[in-house]
Amino acid sequence: MDEFELIQRITPRSLFHREIEIGIGDDAAVYHTKNGYQEIVAVDTMVDGIHFLSSHSSPADIGYKALAVNISDIAAMGGSPKYYLVSIAVPSGWHAVDIEAMYEEMNKLATLYQMDLIGGDTVSANGPLVLTVTVIGEIEKGRTCLRSHAEPGDVVFVTGELGSSAAGLAFILGQAEMKDEKQSQYFIERHKRPLPRVEAGLLCSGYHHVALNDISDGLASELNEIAEASRVSIDIYKEMIPVHSDLHTLHTKWEEWVLFGGEDFELVGTISNDQWERFSQECSERHVPVYQIGRVTQQGQADVFYHNGQDRVLLEKKGYNHFK
Amino acid sequence: MDEFELIQRITPRSLFHREIEIGIGDDAAVYHTKNGYQEIVAVDTMVDGIHFLSSHSSPADIGYKALAVNISDIAAMGGSPKYYLVSIAVPSGWHAVDIEAMYEEMNKLATLYQMDLIGGDTVSANGPLVLTVTVIGEIEKGRTCLRSHAEPGDVVFVTGELGSSAAGLAFILGQAEMKDEKQSQYFIERHKRPLPRVEAGLLCSGYHHVALNDISDGLASELNEIAEASRVSIDIYKEMIPVHSDLHTLHTKWEEWVLFGGEDFELVGTISNDQWERFSQECSERHVPVYQIGRVTQQGQADVFYHNGQDRVLLEKKGYNHFK
Repeated sequence: MDEFELIQRITPRSLFHREIEIGIGDDAAVYHTKNGYQEIVAVDTMVDGIHFLSSHSSPADIGYKALAVNISDIAAMGGSPKYYLVSIAVPSGWHAVDIEAMYEEMNKLATLYQMDLIGGDTVSANGPLVLTVTVIGEIEKGRTCLRSHAEPGDVVFVTGELGSSAAGLAFILGQAEMKDEKQSQYFIERHKRPLPRVEAGLLCSGYHHVALNDISDGLASELNEIAEASRVSIDIYKEMIPVHSDLHTLHTKWEEWVLFGGEDFELVGTISNDQWERFSQECSERHVPVYQIGRVTQQGQADVFYHNGQDRVLLEKKGYNHFK
Repeated sequence: MDEFELIQRITPRSLFHREIEIGIGDDAAVYHTKNGYQEIVAVDTMVDGIHFLSSHSSPADIGYKALAVNISDIAAMGGSPKYYLVSIAVPSGWHAVDIEAMYEEMNKLATLYQMDLIGGDTVSANGPLVLTVTVIGEIEKGRTCLRSHAEPGDVVFVTGELGSSAAGLAFILGQAEMKDEKQSQYFIERHKRPLPRVEAGLLCSGYHHVALNDISDGLASELNEIAEASRVSIDIYKEMIPVHSDLHTLHTKWEEWVLFGGEDFELVGTISNDQWERFSQECSERHVPVYQIGRVTQQGQADVFYHNGQDRVLLEKKGYNHFK
């Protein structure tokens, strides 16, 4: 594959942001920033065989998800994504048409948020495909939703159903039995094509002292991060956590998927009790789902508890390695 | 290797830039920008076996170069580097101590420029080590040194000797015979530890309409990029190009190294004739080397010519793949 040719094909012909002085085509990208705003930067790397399986995901799926998970990081700060850069190490078995399909799908997703591709690097690899995406966003000063913002008395919320991505992966890996084609496709879609909760994040940034994380490593892990950063304890309740109505029929492990599965890329956060009603009202008006799942309980300790009927168990900060 | 533990070990304990609201430790990094400045972003990926050979370079060498080449991209815009993010896909054969050595060396280099590590990603890989570094810098508005800035009559200059990095690589690969240990070490050092020309780039940004590139792909390729972006032709002269006094004794290919070898990470640029004297004077006062190597000759065509005695030959935009 000729790198110059690929760059010409993927270089956007038009840009959303006029603040860009130079996008692709010089040593680096250059852009103006807005007064009163801060910059937000996130970077994530995905490796074939570790974070996705090219045998089970199309190049378009892979490109989509690599960009989506980084947009999700910007959303988890309450910000607006604006720019992205794509670095890709391509094994010799891949064709230019696959790489183009990957960029094309990233471009489609980026267009939803009016994001511009401003740079990157394309190199050959003597190993699996490695895709690194950098996303740059912005947020008004003083509005960042940090993990350290949780306070006792806060409502704990999530923006959508959990465990569905892990269910989709179980279908892909043949670890769950497909009974209904349409149903399993739904879950697989949730795994391959998570929609970053940008609008929900932006709504959160309009309220005071919201803590926010995106659920990449699983609810337990994300809540523990908020608890540790804020030095608070958190109690969540099984019956309050939104799950797909069929989830429990798919596998005995469904509850583990909900708590530890990760990759749902919903947001989990905390907001003060006296803002909660106005916040949930505004979310409802804008058709942004939001569900209370528990409470921030006390200062000092940094424990997360899961209430299952009469039981109250400590939720540990463990992740979940799907391919092990 | 435990990712959480590694992150704790590499998270900087102090920061140069107070504009950072959040560095490592949330979903994304957040920082303020300065009024009247633009942001500059560059990203580069290096793969073991393609861009470096871990059999011949220490983890410290690899880390150094991955950061240096990105700083060089910021320098080639005339900017100041400020932040960096490191994404790394680590094969199972690597130990935590190697990865730490890599970060430690990046930290040393970053400290020279008062740069802060503000984020990244560490993942396992089932293939070679892949290291992606994102560098963010800034530049005063209107001062960016773009490839498109060359104009007929401009002086063409470089900031240091060329071909030495390619010579170093030839020693590493056993393609050139080591006669003098100290001498070959000098060239190997030029290959493994290029010093990004940040100060030279900053000086350039103080002058009007300077075109600038860093020499990663070879002088011929970089000059062709300037010629194409500016729609001008360029003439350079063999006897004006600075090379190490021993270079011609090392290999019959030495001239190819100079023109096509690349990875010297010197800057090549153009500046108007009437600014040249003041510019070279200022460079000399600040001990920043700068050498005229030719002229921008005419508008319209985008050709680069190399004068070798009586001969004037077209220099094509070819790179040079060292491992092929």
